[in-house]
Amino acid sequence: MAVIVKHKGNYLEHFRVGHTFRHKVGKTITEGLFNAFTEYSMTTNPLHKNVEYARRYGYAGLVAPPGLVMNVVFSQTVEDISENARANLEYVDMRFGAPVYIGDTIEATSVVVGVTPSKRDNDRGVVHVQTTGRNQHGEVVLTYERKVQVWKRDLGASIDARTEAVPPADVTLWIPPYDAGRRYPETAHLTSPDTYFEDFSAGDTLEHTRGRMVTTEHIGLTCMLDNTSQVHCNQYMIDQNPDRYLGGQLIVYGGIPFNLCLGLSSPDVADNALGDVRYPTGRHTAPVFAGDTVFASTEIRGCGEYPGRDDLGLVETTLHGHKFVKKDGAWQKVEVFRLEREIAVRRRSHYAG
Amino acid sequence: MAVIVKHKGNYLEHFRVGHTFRHKVGKTITEGLFNAFTEYSMTTNPLHKNVEYARRYGYAGLVAPPGLVMNVVFSQTVEDISENARANLEYVDMRFGAPVYIGDTIEATSVVVGVTPSKRDNDRGVVHVQTTGRNQHGEVVLTYERKVQVWKRDLGASIDARTEAVPPADVTLWIPPYDAGRRYPETAHLTSPDTYFEDFSAGDTLEHTRGRMVTTEHIGLTCMLDNTSQVHCNQYMIDQNPDRYLGGQLIVYGGIPFNLCLGLSSPDVADNALGDVRYPTGRHTAPVFAGDTVFASTEIRGCGEYPGRDDLGLVETTLHGHKFVKKDGAWQKVEVFRLEREIAVRRRSHYAG
Amino acid sequence: MAVIVKHKGNYLEHFRVGHTFRHKVGKTITEGLFNAFTEYSMTTNPLHKNVEYARRYGYAGLVAPPGLVMNVVFSQTVEDISENARANLEYVDMRFGAPVYIGDTIEATSVVVGVTPSKRDNDRGVVHVQTTGRNQHGEVVLTYERKVQVWKRDLGASIDARTEAVPPADVTLWIPPYDAGRRYPETAHLTSPDTYFEDFSAGDTLEHTRGRMVTTEHIGLTCMLDNTSQVHCNQYMIDQNPDRYLGGQLIVYGGIPFNLCLGLSSPDVADNALGDVRYPTGRHTAPVFAGDTVFASTEIRGCGEYPGRDDLGLVETTLHGHKFVKKDGAWQKVEVFRLEREIAVRRRSHYAG
Repeated sequence: MAVIVKHKGNYLEHFRVGHTFRHKVGKTITEGLFNAFTEYSMTTNPLHKNVEYARRYGYAGLVAPPGLVMNVVFSQTVEDISENARANLEYVDMRFGAPVYIGDTIEATSVVVGVTPSKRDNDRGVVHVQTTGRNQHGEVVLTYERKVQVWKRDLGASIDARTEAVPPADVTLWIPPYDAGRRYPETAHLTSPDTYFEDFSAGDTLEHTRGRMVTTEHIGLTCMLDNTSQVHCNQYMIDQNPDRYLGGQLIVYGGIPFNLCLGLSSPDVADNALGDVRYPTGRHTAPVFAGDTVFASTEIRGCGEYPGRDDLGLVETTLHGHKFVKKDGAWQKVEVFRLEREIAVRRRSHYAG
Repeated sequence: MAVIVKHKGNYLEHFRVGHTFRHKVGKTITEGLFNAFTEYSMTTNPLHKNVEYARRYGYAGLVAPPGLVMNVVFSQTVEDISENARANLEYVDMRFGAPVYIGDTIEATSVVVGVTPSKRDNDRGVVHVQTTGRNQHGEVVLTYERKVQVWKRDLGASIDARTEAVPPADVTLWIPPYDAGRRYPETAHLTSPDTYFEDFSAGDTLEHTRGRMVTTEHIGLTCMLDNTSQVHCNQYMIDQNPDRYLGGQLIVYGGIPFNLCLGLSSPDVADNALGDVRYPTGRHTAPVFAGDTVFASTEIRGCGEYPGRDDLGLVETTLHGHKFVKKDGAWQKVEVFRLEREIAVRRRSHYAG
Repeated sequence: MAVIVKHKGNYLEHFRVGHTFRHKVGKTITEGLFNAFTEYSMTTNPLHKNVEYARRYGYAGLVAPPGLVMNVVFSQTVEDISENARANLEYVDMRFGAPVYIGDTIEATSVVVGVTPSKRDNDRGVVHVQTTGRNQHGEVVLTYERKVQVWKRDLGASIDARTEAVPPADVTLWIPPYDAGRRYPETAHLTSPDTYFEDFSAGDTLEHTRGRMVTTEHIGLTCMLDNTSQVHCNQYMIDQNPDRYLGGQLIVYGGIPFNLCLGLSSPDVADNALGDVRYPTGRHTAPVFAGDTVFASTEIRGCGEYPGRDDLGLVETTLHGHKFVKKDGAWQKVEVFRLEREIAVRRRSHYAG
């Protein structure tokens, strides 16, 4: 006869460099999940909305937008990696592989590549993992590294303080081959006329005009992903210790503005894309709360060849998310998210000729 | 190197009479979208809920309710037609055609049939369009006219102030043929016993008893439709200029109460219907905000033959939506929506005999 | 010419012992509905999340969690049984049968087995029904009794005050046969390593650590189920008579915490289960409102053989839901839900050997 409280997740002292987590549960992409996240993002790329358009390009069905793929893989890792995290510090070298379709089942693994105790605070440290998501055929759909600040539970426990080389991320975005017989120009009216590769110039910044208020719906969306981090849904826990939790509010899970900023940028930079290729680095630079209206902008950092594909170009960008906070009676712009983002964009010459 | 702000949508001076917009993106009806809007409506017609019932009647699957069809088509037009609108004035001659099923993809076009600058205010005018939504087979699922008050951006710009004849709306609601071999009475318990054609009398008014509070969920629902109008989701924009926006609140997109009022009326007037045929005219007569509880009532204006079908009758109604507002300590009933509505209703003689 | 208000549902005087209601509408389980309720529950059992896992076990697809099955069947009965109820008193002998899959259509019937007027208050009484839900093949998916306190409308009406014997609940949970050739251990990493039958001891209490705040999303979820009870969605009705309605707030429909508590317990007691077998009794012991954070705990009451199955054991538990309420400056724990629950749990010896 005992009262048993099983603490969930790992603390700093539990991480062993080289250990591979096979994360629990897995997740099938139902049409309900697909709809919730694709539509939340406000994307305007027809690959995610119009199955006739997606099939014309050679996809098997509606294509999950990058924010959904990232969220599904990331959330599977939360219990093992970050249920007891203080902060998510950085995404590194996030790469997309096979397209994700409705009906696919995604499972994820993470290998610990580094553990670094804080020099200043002995109750925390940084865990560095490489995570890989695969579909039911074993194909990689996403891989990325993540650095996350995790609490220690037993302050006296020994830490496996080491770093290892990160395994090579052997994944390439699958893009259907170009085939002029598919008569792409017939559907050119479904996308913006001015977001082809030829339209971008390095150095330009696009201020996306649309914004969206985040409401308490963020709780349901986060739980829908199986993200079990309590700071996003357990108000009672926060009420017990409001100073520890940024003023006593539930924090919006970072994957929500991540997904939303990608979508807000879509009509200006990504509705003629055939996919997000790679995110070299990304960070949440300020918290988002229910009631904030989120906006986005995109810097074009470079425009180059897409290896092996005449019909595409690679656009290197930095995506910024921001919100406005009233301070001393004036609204101040606050950056909430920053993501280096490389996009495979169609050339007008090949698709709207 | 430039900061680029691409304004979305058109202003009054951009509309040319006779121009046809082929709207962007298109939309596949996923089970997620279908569920969200069908259930939000609170409809009790089993055609939208019970696939076994729908198939018995000869439909290919669950049938999208009229509020979902209207919302999907309408929302596709917002960027081109009304992203910069001040107010949606009127729906005219809305007609339904082919049934919409899960998996269908809807695209929309709109032709400009009139532009009328305001005589009083030189910063606005009325745009009159006829919109048509088609499925992936090219079949018309919906057609309607809309009059919308749109802002001018350049007050000095010239306006194409003309009106043209509205093209004929060549669409007829598809209703499966009557076939006594389908043994309809076996499922008569799934609908109300007193909403057959024989039960309606011109002149009666049915006060539907159920009401539903609209919450901030309206933001997510509106964005789920790809309706990009910022007055429904961008609180920061409204905070910058609260006087311009009805007291500083996000306005609920009209398609939400449109859908809800249709559903609230369902158990009293439409759960034995095989479809909404035509809405001669409709208006949003007052704004709805999060926190309002919406109710509905239906006037029966006429009961007549359904051309070519002995098993059906045509019920002509006016659907009213309303809410209550507290003023000087007393609740006042405020009409928010009014829709002339013609419904194809089953005769008891043929279906519950 | 008349104004007609059709009151919905039945009052105490309308119930006749022995009468069987065939409830209206029916409900097809779309992927949208499945996603909404499965994910809301926060379950971690892969049968509900990972279709590859479910198929390995011999299920035809993703399996609806018990909270979804219960909610779909229960909600179909609300208009006839409890639209005019004051309180839901007790669930009795709830048993699960055939698994419910996406695409299934559920219809429900209820037989009245007792009507008991209140001895103290002549405006109410208790109605006792037995409800059965069936799929499109006629297989029973759920059966249960319910006792509900219903208002009288006409205080002078006569009541059919009788009780009859409850018909035997002839239903057995379908569990796919054990087949070692399915190589179950290959997916053992998808569930908790310490929730096999061998891990439970009678007398233990498991305090589940996760909690979740309920928001106004409860309104949408309740309406999504076709639960038409107005106390969950009609704020205006409550504002007219706040004293009658527990302080003037919308009450969260009991099926929401029912579903959530089942899911919150999942990682500690049910992610290695192949199904909930039977709930001998259950009650909502306090109301839940938007803003409450709901928690759960499970008492293990007994661990026994599962008839005819060496690979399973039967775990008898009591599931408790609770929330915290601030009173005189201190947080007090309040039980909101209590459910006796018998679970068919896999043995490690057979599934993770």
